[in-house]
Amino acid sequence: MRALQWDGHTLRLEPDHAPPELRPGWVRLRTRLAGICSTDLQIFQGYMGFTGVPGHEAVLEVLEVAGDPDHPQVGERVVAEINFACGACTACARGLERHCPHRTVLGILGADGVFADEVTAPLVNLHRVPAAVPDEAAVFAEPLAAAFEILEQVPHVGGVEALVLGDGKLGLLCAQVLAASGARVTVIGKHEGKLRLAGELGLTPLAVDAFHPDGAHDLVVEATGSARGLETAMAAVRPRGTLVLKTTVAAQHSVSLAPLVINEVTVVGSRCGPFAPALTALAEGRVHVAPLISAEYPLDEGLAAVERAKVPGTLKVLLRP
Amino acid sequence: MRALQWDGHTLRLEPDHAPPELRPGWVRLRTRLAGICSTDLQIFQGYMGFTGVPGHEAVLEVLEVAGDPDHPQVGERVVAEINFACGACTACARGLERHCPHRTVLGILGADGVFADEVTAPLVNLHRVPAAVPDEAAVFAEPLAAAFEILEQVPHVGGVEALVLGDGKLGLLCAQVLAASGARVTVIGKHEGKLRLAGELGLTPLAVDAFHPDGAHDLVVEATGSARGLETAMAAVRPRGTLVLKTTVAAQHSVSLAPLVINEVTVVGSRCGPFAPALTALAEGRVHVAPLISAEYPLDEGLAAVERAKVPGTLKVLLRP
Repeated sequence: MRALQWDGHTLRLEPDHAPPELRPGWVRLRTRLAGICSTDLQIFQGYMGFTGVPGHEAVLEVLEVAGDPDHPQVGERVVAEINFACGACTACARGLERHCPHRTVLGILGADGVFADEVTAPLVNLHRVPAAVPDEAAVFAEPLAAAFEILEQVPHVGGVEALVLGDGKLGLLCAQVLAASGARVTVIGKHEGKLRLAGELGLTPLAVDAFHPDGAHDLVVEATGSARGLETAMAAVRPRGTLVLKTTVAAQHSVSLAPLVINEVTVVGSRCGPFAPALTALAEGRVHVAPLISAEYPLDEGLAAVERAKVPGTLKVLLRP
Repeated sequence: MRALQWDGHTLRLEPDHAPPELRPGWVRLRTRLAGICSTDLQIFQGYMGFTGVPGHEAVLEVLEVAGDPDHPQVGERVVAEINFACGACTACARGLERHCPHRTVLGILGADGVFADEVTAPLVNLHRVPAAVPDEAAVFAEPLAAAFEILEQVPHVGGVEALVLGDGKLGLLCAQVLAASGARVTVIGKHEGKLRLAGELGLTPLAVDAFHPDGAHDLVVEATGSARGLETAMAAVRPRGTLVLKTTVAAQHSVSLAPLVINEVTVVGSRCGPFAPALTALAEGRVHVAPLISAEYPLDEGLAAVERAKVPGTLKVLLRP
C-alpha cells in the first residue's frame, strides 16, 4: 500500500509500504479522507520522537473486522478515537482511557497513522459516521472532539463572555462550540482572512494588535500554538475566571504564574475529547467546518500537502488516498 | 503609638507613630497579638512595593466603633479580613470582594497593618472571635482561612490521595484542613523538625529527597514558596487531577506547561479564603495551630522577631504589643 513514512528526519511517500498488522480486537480500515493537523507539523519538528506513518485525523471505511455484529461492519464509514488504551490499568478502570499510561496514539505515539491507504485500530475506538455527515465534514471529528472537551471540563458556558486566543483551526472550532452553547465569543487573531471567516461564522473577530486585555473575560481559551499566548490569556481572564489551555508548547519558556494565584484563576489543561457530541454537532449543522478547508491533495502528493499546511494563514489541508 | 514602619528599604520601630485615620464605616482596633507571615518577609524584599506599617495576621480588640449594634462592640475580640473592597464595582457586586480591583489590603497594599499598637479596618471586614478560641489560636485565622479556600475551590476532597508540597506554616495548615475533610494527606518537606510535627499532627510526612513523583495523586497543593515546586507538582498530579497553587512567586521562571495540557490537569490559583470556617475549625479543635508557634516577641523587639522569622526551619513567630 501507499503510505507517508516519517523516519525522524525525512518524510517520504512509500509506494509499497507493508500493510499494518491486524491485532486481536482490531479492525483493518481504508483511509477515505485524512486531515493534516498542527501536531503533525510538530512531529516533523521532532515532537514525541515519533517515527512511522503519521496522521490521526481521518474518515475511514471498515475493510475487515472479526467480532461483534453490533460494531461497525465491512463497508461502513467510521472515525477512530486516537488513544489506544490498554483497558487493564487503573486509569482505564476509572474511565480515563484517553490518559492510559500504556496507551499508543494513532500516528503520534507507537501506532502507525492514517496518511496511508490502510490503517488498523481497535474496534472499541470506532464511531460510525452518520449518513448526513459527508467525508469532508467527518474528517474534522477528531479536532472538533477536542473542542467539545472544553464543555466536559467547564460545565457552565452559557451566557459567559468568552475569548478565544488564536484564529487557527482549533481556535475556530473551539469558538464555534462555545458559541453554539450560548457563550458570547470573541476570537483574537492575526490573519485577516481567518478573522473575516470568524465573522462569517457568527463570532466576534478582533485583530490581536487592537486587543487590550482587561482582565474581564469569564472564560479564555488559549489556542494560539505559541508560548506567548499564556501571558495574554492571564491578562485577559477575570479574577476567579477560567483559562483553558489548548496549546501544547513543549519548549520551556519564562513566565510568572503569580497572577493565577493572586486572581485565583482556574486553569484547565484540555487535549482530546469526546467524539459523540462532535459527530452529532456535524450532523445537525451546529458547527461549520467546510469553510475551514484550505486545500485538498491526493495522497500521492502528500509531501506537497504537508508543505502547503506549513504556509502561514493556511487552515485545514486534506489528503485523499 | 508604637509601630513597625517599612520605608521600602529599612524596617524601624517608631515609638511615636501617628495613630491610623478612622474613616467612615471603619473601626479603631487594638492589636492584641500579631503573626509574621512569609508575605511580610517578601515585602521586606520589595514585594508589592509596599511602604507603611506591615502585618496582616492579628487578633484585635475593638477600641472605637460608630454604627450598627449588630456589629462587634468596644472590647470585643475580632479578626479582620484583609482585603478592603470598594463595595461599588462589578467585582464587589458579584460577591468577589476579595478580588475588588480597587481594594486596599491590610499591611500589604495601601493600608497600614497590624504590627503596631493600633490599626483601623472596615467594620464589614471584622469577625468576632469565639470565646473558646484563645488569642494564640485566633491569630492563625487569616492563614487558616487561606487553607480553607481550597475547600471552596475543590469541592470533593473526601477520600482523595492528596499531596502537600511544603512543610511550612501554610503547607501544614492546608494539610490539616484537607485531612479534616477526609483526604489522605502526605506532606513533602525538607525540614526534619517540621516533618516530625506533620507526623504528630496525623499527616504522613515524607522527606523531599525520598519523594519520587509518580503522577498518581488526585490533588496536589503547591505550598513550597519556591518556583521549582511547580514542576514537582506537575509530575506528582495524576491525569485529570487537580493542582492547587498557593505559592506566589512573582519572579519569572522557565517552565513548560505542556504536561498540564497532555494530562488535562486543572490548576487552581488559591489565595485568601473565608474566615468563618477557619474560626469554627479553631473553636472545635479540628485544626491544631499551637504546635506551629516557634516564638513570641514583644512588639518592642519587632526587628528581632522579623530576623527570627527569617531563620530556616522557623514556623510562626508572634508579636505581642
